[in-house]
Amino acid sequence: VTDPHPPDALLALRDALREFVAERDWKQFHTPRNLAIAISVEAGELLEPFQWLETGRSPELSEAARARVADELADVLSCVVRLADELDIDLPAAARAKLEQNRAKYPPDQVRGSARKYSEYG
Amino acid sequence: VTDPHPPDALLALRDALREFVAERDWKQFHTPRNLAIAISVEAGELLEPFQWLETGRSPELSEAARARVADELADVLSCVVRLADELDIDLPAAARAKLEQNRAKYPPDQVRGSARKYSEYG
Amino acid sequence: VTDPHPPDALLALRDALREFVAERDWKQFHTPRNLAIAISVEAGELLEPFQWLETGRSPELSEAARARVADELADVLSCVVRLADELDIDLPAAARAKLEQNRAKYPPDQVRGSARKYSEYG
Amino acid sequence: VTDPHPPDALLALRDALREFVAERDWKQFHTPRNLAIAISVEAGELLEPFQWLETGRSPELSEAARARVADELADVLSCVVRLADELDIDLPAAARAKLEQNRAKYPPDQVRGSARKYSEYG
Repeated sequence: VTDPHPPDALLALRDALREFVAERDWKQFHTPRNLAIAISVEAGELLEPFQWLETGRSPELSEAARARVADELADVLSCVVRLADELDIDLPAAARAKLEQNRAKYPPDQVRGSARKYSEYG
Repeated sequence: VTDPHPPDALLALRDALREFVAERDWKQFHTPRNLAIAISVEAGELLEPFQWLETGRSPELSEAARARVADELADVLSCVVRLADELDIDLPAAARAKLEQNRAKYPPDQVRGSARKYSEYG
Repeated sequence: VTDPHPPDALLALRDALREFVAERDWKQFHTPRNLAIAISVEAGELLEPFQWLETGRSPELSEAARARVADELADVLSCVVRLADELDIDLPAAARAKLEQNRAKYPPDQVRGSARKYSEYG
Repeated sequence: VTDPHPPDALLALRDALREFVAERDWKQFHTPRNLAIAISVEAGELLEPFQWLETGRSPELSEAARARVADELADVLSCVVRLADELDIDLPAAARAKLEQNRAKYPPDQVRGSARKYSEYG
């Protein structure tokens, strides 16, 4: 009987990246600092298509820009997964912990609909 | 009978973030550009603990630095998930497509163990 | 007779930073990579006050945000001057050369008033 | 009689950039936020040649990488000068003020030769 449940996407990506890196003997270059650098480089590339927009909203993005964004998001995500793997960080647990902190830090009835509150609390 | 399979971590995070944003009426601030900016801001914060290290390797990170890195990785991941959600981008599919491209771009027997190749091909 | 001409600001900053670094014996940490990392970290901090704005225009910045921007611009500039100094790069000459390239790349009569052209050429 | 003193490099760059922007009618795109985004994008490009280095020191950079760094430093500097100009920020004064703060924050006899102190104070 095949398991009808798809594998967890983050774990599947982690494993595929491990294999990709092992096949190329690139683990030696994947120091935590180098991966953190790679995340900043990719985040900059992700930001590039937004650089001179007017509104920065979805309809303003051309199809090419949207495809570029998907591509760069994939790069950022892959580097995030690789760095977490190198440092044995449980990404979903870290994200849940952070969300819990943010729930306490930004009580809905105090910050609702306010960017000013958002910035000042941030 | 409870389902023994945990939910997919990325989907669970996407849903938790949707709820967090809706409760605060913050969707209005989550334009694609603003989220792309947030990813760069968080990537910079992630890079900060690596700024003045010698080797940039794992043992050089203090416990406090490692916890900071986990925290900032969670922030980057959350913003990546939010931006993908706003633009209807399937993150795992985008990551698989990018990995496929990179497999073709960096053939193992041509780039194995070489950072120079890595950079030039990159 | 005192020289009525103020010293060149970039050279004065370079010299003041050299002295600051020497007094603390920090030159050992100022590898080109570490300084490039510092520039990205500071650029992220500079971006932070703009993160959730509506228009991103000048009147939307509070006095506190404007002071923060001045502070972070000073940090970015100082790291740029330090990295150029470590690599013996003549910053004004590099900036003039780049401007010359951009003049050729973006002919006024073809790109005037167009962000689309701007992005595509970029 | 010609003035033997060269013009201040930052002021000369500011003026050349003003002219470049005016000739293309691009001032409309140079909102403070867009320029802050551009600085992060360029800082990411500057970081790219350092991404997979071993030591991150000067001798490890190829001639091509060093030229790329000079080019990207010029881009970062130009965007810094443009943003300061749009917000009427006196860059040399801001840099001097920041250096004064850092002199007080990092007393030489307490931080000399220590990266740990550097990071913790930072």
